[in-house]
Amino acid sequence: MDSLAMKPEEIEAESFRIIDAEAGRHDWPPAEWQVVRRAVHTSADFEYVRSMVFSQGAVEQAVAALKSGYGIVTDTNMALSGISKVRLARFGTRVNCHVADPDVIEIAKQEGITRSIAAMRKAVGDPVNRIFVIGNAPTALFELLRLTDEGTAKPALIIGLPVGFVGAEESKNALAASGQAIPFITNIGRKGGSNVAAAVVNALAILAGQC
Amino acid sequence: MDSLAMKPEEIEAESFRIIDAEAGRHDWPPAEWQVVRRAVHTSADFEYVRSMVFSQGAVEQAVAALKSGYGIVTDTNMALSGISKVRLARFGTRVNCHVADPDVIEIAKQEGITRSIAAMRKAVGDPVNRIFVIGNAPTALFELLRLTDEGTAKPALIIGLPVGFVGAEESKNALAASGQAIPFITNIGRKGGSNVAAAVVNALAILAGQC
Repeated sequence: MDSLAMKPEEIEAESFRIIDAEAGRHDWPPAEWQVVRRAVHTSADFEYVRSMVFSQGAVEQAVAALKSGYGIVTDTNMALSGISKVRLARFGTRVNCHVADPDVIEIAKQEGITRSIAAMRKAVGDPVNRIFVIGNAPTALFELLRLTDEGTAKPALIIGLPVGFVGAEESKNALAASGQAIPFITNIGRKGGSNVAAAVVNALAILAGQC
Repeated sequence: MDSLAMKPEEIEAESFRIIDAEAGRHDWPPAEWQVVRRAVHTSADFEYVRSMVFSQGAVEQAVAALKSGYGIVTDTNMALSGISKVRLARFGTRVNCHVADPDVIEIAKQEGITRSIAAMRKAVGDPVNRIFVIGNAPTALFELLRLTDEGTAKPALIIGLPVGFVGAEESKNALAASGQAIPFITNIGRKGGSNVAAAVVNALAILAGQC
C-alpha cells in the first residue's frame, strides 16, 4: 500500500509489524518489548533489541510511578518536546526541563559546573519530581546518581540513555551497577539520545494508559 | 581524563577527536565532513559516514542560505528544540514548526490529511521560509517536493532525514532523485531523525558563522 494513502495509525501499525518481523528471535517479555520496539521505531536501529537493559520489574514500577502523577524531569528540551503530553494528561503529570532556566544558567556560570548538573540539582529540589529522563548529558546522570546516593533525590524511575563518545557509556554502566535500589531503563554502549529517551517514556505512558 | 572534570567544549573536542580516529578512511571534503561528523556525534552511529548524501555544492549553498536570513521550517518540535538559536541569531533567522498550530490541526482534521502535510502547506505560505528541515515525517518531505514541483515552495535548502519503516527511505530517495534543482542534504536508508536533522543545521550554522 502506498504510504501516502495511509493514516498515521496505519503507518504506526505497519511499522511495528515490520519491526516484529525483522527483529528476529529475542527473549523480551511482552511489556519490555513494547518499550524496546518503540526505541527501535524512533531510531530505525535494531541494535536496541540487544542493548537495552531494564532493572527487575522496571516496567511495572514505571507504570506505577506514572500513575502516581510524579513529575518527569528531562535533561534536554528535545526530550521534553518528544514526550507526548496528551498521553500523560490523565495522570496529571508535569514534565519539566530546567537546562535553559535563567537561574540554572547563572548558577552553572557562578559555580563552574555544567548546566546539566545545575538543572538536575534544581529539579530534585521539588519532591514531586521522581521520574528522571536523561537522553543526552552523562554529567546529568552522574549527578543524579550522586544526589540519590546522598539522599537528596528519590527517583521512582531513571531512564538513562545518554548518547556520545565521552562519558555516556560510563554513566549508563554506573546506573546499571547501582543495583536494584532504583528502577531503571538504560542501554549498553554509546548510542542513545533524547529521541530514544522520549520514545521510552511514550511507550510507558501507553502501557500505563492500558491498565 | 575524567569526563566529569572536563568542560563542555573539551568534551566536544574530545568527541570529535574520537570520531575522526574511528571513522577510518573516507572521501568527505572538509566542509561536508563537518556536517557528517556532527550527525555521528549526535547519534553515536558511524553509519552516517557511509549513508549521507549531499547535492553538489549543498554546503556552500546552505551557508549562503543561512546568511541570507531565510526562515527555517522543521517538521517536528523536537527538531526545532535541537536547533541552536544562539548560533542563528546573528543571521536573524526565524525557526518555526507548525505541526501543533491549532489552525493546522483543524485543517488536517477537515481535509483528512496528516498534520505534517497541513503544516508544510502553511509554512510555504510565508515566502521567507526557504530552508526546510524534515527529521521525522515522510509525508512532510513528499508534500514539500510536490509543492516545489508546482512552484508553491521555493526551497534554498532541504535537509531531508525522515526516520522509520514506512515511507522514510522512499521519501529520501525521491529527494535525492529530484536532481540538482534543489540543494539537499539527506541519507540513504531508514535511519535519520529529528536529532540528526537538528545536528546538520547546527553544523551548517557553525560553518556559516566562520566565513
